[in-house]
Amino acid sequence: MPISDHRPAAMIDGGAVFPHRHLTGIEGLQPHEILFLLDEAEQWIDANRSRAPGDQRLKGVTQINAFFENSTRTLLSFEIAGKRLGADVVNMHAGQSSVKKGETLIDTAVTLNAMRADVIVIRHSSSGAVQLIADKVDCPVLNAGDGWHEHPTQALLDALTIRRRLGEIAHKRVVICGDILHSRVARSNILALTTLAAEVRVVAPATLMPHAIESMGVTPFTDFDAALEGADVVMMLRLQNERMNGGFIPSTREYHLRYGLTRERLKRAEPHAIVMHPGPMNRGIEINSDVADDSERSTITEQVEMGVAVRMACLDVLTRRSRGVEGWA
Amino acid sequence: MPISDHRPAAMIDGGAVFPHRHLTGIEGLQPHEILFLLDEAEQWIDANRSRAPGDQRLKGVTQINAFFENSTRTLLSFEIAGKRLGADVVNMHAGQSSVKKGETLIDTAVTLNAMRADVIVIRHSSSGAVQLIADKVDCPVLNAGDGWHEHPTQALLDALTIRRRLGEIAHKRVVICGDILHSRVARSNILALTTLAAEVRVVAPATLMPHAIESMGVTPFTDFDAALEGADVVMMLRLQNERMNGGFIPSTREYHLRYGLTRERLKRAEPHAIVMHPGPMNRGIEINSDVADDSERSTITEQVEMGVAVRMACLDVLTRRSRGVEGWA
Amino acid sequence: MPISDHRPAAMIDGGAVFPHRHLTGIEGLQPHEILFLLDEAEQWIDANRSRAPGDQRLKGVTQINAFFENSTRTLLSFEIAGKRLGADVVNMHAGQSSVKKGETLIDTAVTLNAMRADVIVIRHSSSGAVQLIADKVDCPVLNAGDGWHEHPTQALLDALTIRRRLGEIAHKRVVICGDILHSRVARSNILALTTLAAEVRVVAPATLMPHAIESMGVTPFTDFDAALEGADVVMMLRLQNERMNGGFIPSTREYHLRYGLTRERLKRAEPHAIVMHPGPMNRGIEINSDVADDSERSTITEQVEMGVAVRMACLDVLTRRSRGVEGWA
Repeated sequence: MPISDHRPAAMIDGGAVFPHRHLTGIEGLQPHEILFLLDEAEQWIDANRSRAPGDQRLKGVTQINAFFENSTRTLLSFEIAGKRLGADVVNMHAGQSSVKKGETLIDTAVTLNAMRADVIVIRHSSSGAVQLIADKVDCPVLNAGDGWHEHPTQALLDALTIRRRLGEIAHKRVVICGDILHSRVARSNILALTTLAAEVRVVAPATLMPHAIESMGVTPFTDFDAALEGADVVMMLRLQNERMNGGFIPSTREYHLRYGLTRERLKRAEPHAIVMHPGPMNRGIEINSDVADDSERSTITEQVEMGVAVRMACLDVLTRRSRGVEGWA
Repeated sequence: MPISDHRPAAMIDGGAVFPHRHLTGIEGLQPHEILFLLDEAEQWIDANRSRAPGDQRLKGVTQINAFFENSTRTLLSFEIAGKRLGADVVNMHAGQSSVKKGETLIDTAVTLNAMRADVIVIRHSSSGAVQLIADKVDCPVLNAGDGWHEHPTQALLDALTIRRRLGEIAHKRVVICGDILHSRVARSNILALTTLAAEVRVVAPATLMPHAIESMGVTPFTDFDAALEGADVVMMLRLQNERMNGGFIPSTREYHLRYGLTRERLKRAEPHAIVMHPGPMNRGIEINSDVADDSERSTITEQVEMGVAVRMACLDVLTRRSRGVEGWA
Repeated sequence: MPISDHRPAAMIDGGAVFPHRHLTGIEGLQPHEILFLLDEAEQWIDANRSRAPGDQRLKGVTQINAFFENSTRTLLSFEIAGKRLGADVVNMHAGQSSVKKGETLIDTAVTLNAMRADVIVIRHSSSGAVQLIADKVDCPVLNAGDGWHEHPTQALLDALTIRRRLGEIAHKRVVICGDILHSRVARSNILALTTLAAEVRVVAPATLMPHAIESMGVTPFTDFDAALEGADVVMMLRLQNERMNGGFIPSTREYHLRYGLTRERLKRAEPHAIVMHPGPMNRGIEINSDVADDSERSTITEQVEMGVAVRMACLDVLTRRSRGVEGWA
């Protein structure tokens, strides 16, 4: 199924295959670069399933997970990914002291760099914070979500899930429904999926739809039912708590009626259409349990699994230069 | 001292020796199964004392400690146990985000499973939460305390401590004193000790004694002094803060007078009687310092040490099937 | 540059070279003992820069970081140091449960000891807490900062930084400016620098200057400008938030005017003078950005780097006895 890269290792020119030092976003990635990361991830899916000890290729690598914003799942996923490859993984819970002490973000970045981190994974509530740090350090930086900007590994794991379920991504009709305006998941997915030639439709109430979203190459809808016609993929977004009581939606009940995915509504999509959600879900709000738990249609747990594999691939690929891997050094 | 299993490894039939996939509680364990875990733990006591590097048998195993309820000690003990055996140990502090975000417990379980955890250690404030998770995952689940239900590794480490101090458990008179009603420590200990043929007496004020506790095969007392006659083991329970100011006891001072263990009161027990406490202690409430710190009688630090050994044994035994250990695969 | 110890390993008598079981402070250390730790740290600087896997000499060693006081940076530094040497590093966030449950510090110490910790790193808000724990455990204890008492690894990393920048420490004029009264960083640095024959001047407003500080072998100043004359090293202390709004200083603006390090003021020091700060900085209060970010003069990021190396050296040296290293057992 996956489009693998069958050139022998000795002939690989890392600078041509994936020339980027960081993974701050999907923006700026070429189609073959995205596919390269997906191909690399494939090997780790099997390795993880066989529960065999990893190959320890990141032995001696110091991976710092600097999470300035809480995220149990994403942190777990990156931590497991790093440890399975043998890295020394260190979590910096930055919601705590130094940051509260008023240290600037750049000072924190310079500090992590001085400790000779080999790769830094960052989550931050401000858009652009990750790029700011990437500009200040000598090692690769991986964006684990920054503000409303990007969450690239989420988009990669979603793309990998689609490719494995539907065979390919190009020309598939993907419907992304929810709070498009504030969603870095939506943004990274739009960038990845349009780059890979999917047809992307975005659905949201007018208050949660970005201005001029068409410029990203997608078609906006306010009517979920209309958008679902012919969909191969239905990707639901989490409705954040802070949006539930604001002026964005009349009520969660109203939201559910118009934008919640039900079994009935799903019938408008293609019969083979898959249902995705980045988790954690608000059951009964953006998605109903009968759809979420339908293992034929729902890929939600598969997405979690792909997440670990994709993060292993990213950690491996981005550290190849500093590890002196042949063809990459 | 320990009753070891001297059959050669090749002849072991793991399915007969310890057929359980999970350790959700002591309930349902046969005497020989409990003794098997204690015997397995014995080897780790010496290994830990010699400070020799562990044998790394859990290399490549992903152990997730999912603690939905804080517990510095028990978490430390499980984390050290896993790391000494070479596991990749990942702590999920679940008091945080995802859970607060309203995700269901089952969704969390499914997520951990999708990340290909090899063993999950769970602590949760609700009775039955651990079983709920165990039913949803493919890997072994270890209960590190759930609500008022069970805390099986505590009972195992207590049994190991008694066996090492007194030679055997059968026919010993064990007095458990404190908040029997809300104590998973008491419950798991009652189950383990009665299964191993000890004579168990439970002591509590009427407000903290479960109804019909006799059905568990123990003798209830409200008079601590009377219960102590002929005791070989005096196991004191921690009085939880939330019980101190409720309607359960008149005052901590009154509680101490009637149910606190003092040197004077201990004289009613056998001269060789040992004093146990699961920690952390409320000195001057349920136990006096002169008793707690008497290294001849008190086994409190020994219990902590046995805790690491018992948890190493449980992590090892429960993962034998998935690791393909001979006789267990 | 460093004064290395060139005796062959077989001839080392660890008991003579560094006879201390713990590192609770700089107080009591001989000059050659401090220099020995600095020399040991030198090797790790290069190892960390080359990003080569560490030599795993602490394989099988259980290092518990018991931080009763938050410190993102120091915890990270100790955690990275231990992991780079192959230790099993376990963080105990002791601001949490057990401690809140009213357990005594000694009970916590006894518990960590019973778990067979091989080295314990402690940070605590009370002066003397570290010594209290050191007295109760069988393994080496490393002070990562206790109250207003000591922060010895900070002093060691500062000394190493000075030695590498200026060639030697003896006879250098070091000016330490800030809240001398409440600063364990100042205290440990004064002890280390005077032991190594530097000339130390301390500068603070009268409210933040300890009584009879001259007895520590330093010269006190209230006038920063006067103190700077002929300085080789200008070490600025962080002004803690809790001091900003108290009765200690009129205002942060006033403090900055009299005790903030500006480019203008720095001209009073020697042209080669270096600028140090333990971090995290309050930019615009105790130090201006143009000075802090001047890589010719400022050693602030170098200090962070030296921190990891020094902590690796301390963890290595203190565990040599228990690891049975030749000459140390």
